[in-house]
Parts: sequence; structure tokens; C-alpha cells
Amino acid sequence: MTADVHRPIRKVAICAPATPLNRHYAEQVTDLAAAEFPGIELQFHEQCFVEKGHFAGSDETRLAALLECANDPDIDAVWFAKGGYGSNRIAARFLEQVGDPARSKLFLGYSDCGTLLGALYRAGIGTPVHAPMPVDIKREGGDVAIRRVLAYLSGNSDGLEPSLPDRPVVAFNLYTLAMLVGTPFMPDLTGHEVYLEEVGEYEYAVDRLLFHVTAQIGNIAGIRLGEVTAVPENDRPFGASAEEIVQDWCRRSGISYLGRAEVGHSSANKIVPFGLEGRTLRA
Amino acid sequence: MTADVHRPIRKVAICAPATPLNRHYAEQVTDLAAAEFPGIELQFHEQCFVEKGHFAGSDETRLAALLECANDPDIDAVWFAKGGYGSNRIAARFLEQVGDPARSKLFLGYSDCGTLLGALYRAGIGTPVHAPMPVDIKREGGDVAIRRVLAYLSGNSDGLEPSLPDRPVVAFNLYTLAMLVGTPFMPDLTGHEVYLEEVGEYEYAVDRLLFHVTAQIGNIAGIRLGEVTAVPENDRPFGASAEEIVQDWCRRSGISYLGRAEVGHSSANKIVPFGLEGRTLRA
Repeated sequence: MTADVHRPIRKVAICAPATPLNRHYAEQVTDLAAAEFPGIELQFHEQCFVEKGHFAGSDETRLAALLECANDPDIDAVWFAKGGYGSNRIAARFLEQVGDPARSKLFLGYSDCGTLLGALYRAGIGTPVHAPMPVDIKREGGDVAIRRVLAYLSGNSDGLEPSLPDRPVVAFNLYTLAMLVGTPFMPDLTGHEVYLEEVGEYEYAVDRLLFHVTAQIGNIAGIRLGEVTAVPENDRPFGASAEEIVQDWCRRSGISYLGRAEVGHSSANKIVPFGLEGRTLRA
Repeated sequence: MTADVHRPIRKVAICAPATPLNRHYAEQVTDLAAAEFPGIELQFHEQCFVEKGHFAGSDETRLAALLECANDPDIDAVWFAKGGYGSNRIAARFLEQVGDPARSKLFLGYSDCGTLLGALYRAGIGTPVHAPMPVDIKREGGDVAIRRVLAYLSGNSDGLEPSLPDRPVVAFNLYTLAMLVGTPFMPDLTGHEVYLEEVGEYEYAVDRLLFHVTAQIGNIAGIRLGEVTAVPENDRPFGASAEEIVQDWCRRSGISYLGRAEVGHSSANKIVPFGLEGRTLRA
């Protein structure tokens, strides 16, 4: 599918399959892009700003916006505005209704939106790319993260995760992957290097999620660990670091531990195109 | 296996496959049993009080205690002292080393220890029973929960979950079941009524866990919802109650929603023997 992807990218549609984006952040990203990347046109779908309970609109509203962006032949890339939770709720109907124009597009995001990246990867539709999202502008150094994506879309590969190997890769939030395994949206990861990151989970929860995930992806090439940030303080120390926990579950399950990677819920979050796309770009 | 189980139960061994029990709670439970159930002898294994990081001792320590209790032919029932997290870490080696004396025993507990109940049920070893644990003595009305278990072990079926049907049942903490599905410890739940309860999880997390679980247990007889307690307050309302969330995922996945049940992280937590054992007792 790589050959079909238009590069450089000109028109980018942004929607929010999970939770809503603060309009102020959209304006900041728009201003940054206009000032520094005049070749890229960002189109924030109004659905990004809709609020309904936890979500950026009802399932129907979010699905309709996602389909509009994915099925518009004038759009080169679909950028997810923000994670949170909820993209899984529209994944099945999205796959049913997504059309041919989506096949040549990039889809960019991470965290909860990894569910859609995984589902698209399984279906062989477009090029899923683990990458910072517009909401990251709010972080310290968030402008750097946004600039990394816009430069990547412009054809500059400097923002790619430095460890990208000559094997296919995927990158996921650990919890998101744990909820994806065993479902109809889980891609076949045979032979893949799997990059994992986590945020806001207790170490015992990281341990438990790895128990679940490593029991089901034994045929991968190995795990590379990104950042594990904002770990809440528990009533007692767990007794092992996040890296030791990953190493332990790799050992138990016969999976290779490959070291660290620069993915995670921070401004340092690098770009990981799924599959072998990254190798192609770097070569 | 029902025919093999000794009833009434005389000797009960208590160990902690996950996190440690405060010795004070063990004393309270011992005193209650001695005063009101002189026919039952409770043997708290010293391992219950060991602390190592998050756990009640290392994996080796917890496994050894569990095996001692399970493989002792003089013991009629093994009662898990407390959940927390960690029984999954010793489940594989436990199943490898558990012997014939375990086959005629009851195994009682819930929450994280549901992993062991599920693994035993899959392996057809003994009778797994969702039931209050010694740690529950600390709750308001906790003495009632402890008394419910001791009465049940004495042959009194009043503490059984009132909704037990003429079909096989299991009861699980939702998060525990979500981590169990797809692993080598997951029992076949075809035709079962599945009782679920949750504690301390955001509503969006309950939604996410149900997405994961309902995608993988489509052949069950239905879901019955227990208590969903200590839901943390999120930065915005989710927009649906726990019961509405369960009903939604049942509808999406074609699973029957069967109503409420009295299981959960509270003193009201009723007894649910796995399989058809409850029907046998009640008849």
C-alpha cells in the first residue's frame, strides 16, 4: 500500500473519534502550521469540538465525521485530534463504511486512537502512523511535537522513531493494545517489533496488562518499551520498575526484549509508521 | 466433580495468592469462627502476612503456600485471604504442580483471585466458588460476609446468590475477566450465565473492559450485573450508568442481559459456586 500514499501531504482532515478537543488548541496548531508549513492545509472538522458526556459527540456524530474525512478524495491524511477513550465504539461501523479514498491516506494518532490504527492495519487500509496529535500542543514543548508531525507530512523523516528496524513495526499504548487483542480489530503481529508505552497506570496494572498481552502475541519479533509516565503513587512500592516488569513478562513468555524507544505521552513522542513504511522513508 | 466435595467442610486452609492480609483481620475472623462455627477449623498460613513489594511474598513464596494448602489431603477447602493483584503470576506453575488432593476441595475467593478460580474451573480441579474473603471482615457489616461463608461451608445454602439459575454460572470481577480472556487460563463459558462486578474503575474504563470482554464471550447464556462501586469521579460525566453500559454492550454483541445480582466488593457479596454446584445445593 505504500506506493499509493501521496507524499508530500497537502490536505489534512482532523476529527476526534474519542474525546473533544479544546478549540483553543486547534487554533494554536492552525497558527503554527500556517506560519511554518504553508504547503499544508489543516481542516479541523467541527465535530472535534462537540461534547456529549465523555465523548466528542455521540457514536453517530463521531462516526460520521470520521467517515467524511476518510472518504473525501481531496484529503491526503486523517489526523486524530485527541485520544481519551471511545474510538473502539465506532471501529466496527467505520470499517463497514470506509471507502476506496481511504486507501491512499495516512491516518495519524496514538493512545486510544491506536484502536483505529490497529483496525486499519488489520484491514490493510491506508497507512496507520503512530504520531503526536493536535492535543499535544498543550504539553510543555508541545509545539515541537506538532512541528514533528507537520514536517513528517511535508516529507521530512527526521521525526521518525530512531530505533525503527528492518522489520515491520507497530506502536501502541499498552492498555489500548490489551483491549484490542482478541477482538475483530486486532491485526496479525507475526514478526513485528511491538513498541509499547503507557500513561497514568499503577505499576501493578502495567504488570497485569502485560500478563494479558504477552499471552497473546507470542509470535512477534520483540517488544520495545517507550515511556511509562504519570504512574500514580500506590499505598506501597511495587518492587520493580516498568522496564523490569516488561523484561519479566518477555522472559516468561519467550518474547525478545529489544530495549527502549521514544514513544509515549510526552512531547518527545516520535513517529512510527506501521509496517515497513518507516524503513522505506528512511532508506 | 461435585460428588467428590466433602460437605460439611471441617478444615479450611487460608493463603494469599496476591497481596498480604493484616494479621489483625485474621485474628478477627478466627475469633468469629471459633465462637460461632466450632465445627470449622481455620488455618491461616503464615504466608498470608508476608510482605514483599506489592505482594504477599515473592511468586515462589505465594506459590509454595498455595500448593501446600491445595495439595494437603487433610484440608477440605482453600480460602483466599485477599485479592489486590498477583494470583495470575503464579497460575501457570500452580496448575503444573497441583495434585490429586486438590480435586475434592472447594476454592473460595473473588476479585483478583478470580484468575485462580477461572484457571481451576478450566482445568476441572475442585469446586471454584466466588465468595467473600477474610479481608472483608474490615468492611462495615463485614462480619455478616464472613459468617455467610462459614455457614455455607457448614452446609447452609442461605448465602447463595439468590438469582442462581438452572444453568451453569461463573462470577468474576470485570477487570479480572478482561485480563483472563484469551489466556491459557480462560475457561470455556459456553452456555454460562456470567456474573460481573467492578470496583474503583471509571465508567469509561468499565465501557472499555466490556468492549473487550463481550467481543470474546459471545456464546454465553447472558450477563448479570453485580455491584459497581467506588467509581472515581471523572472530569466530566460519562453519560450512562454502569447498568446502561452493560446493556449497551450486550445489545451490540448479541448477548442477553439478565438483570442484577448480589455480587460485588461489599459485605452484601453473595456466594456463587461455579458451574451447576449451586443448583445442586439449593435443590
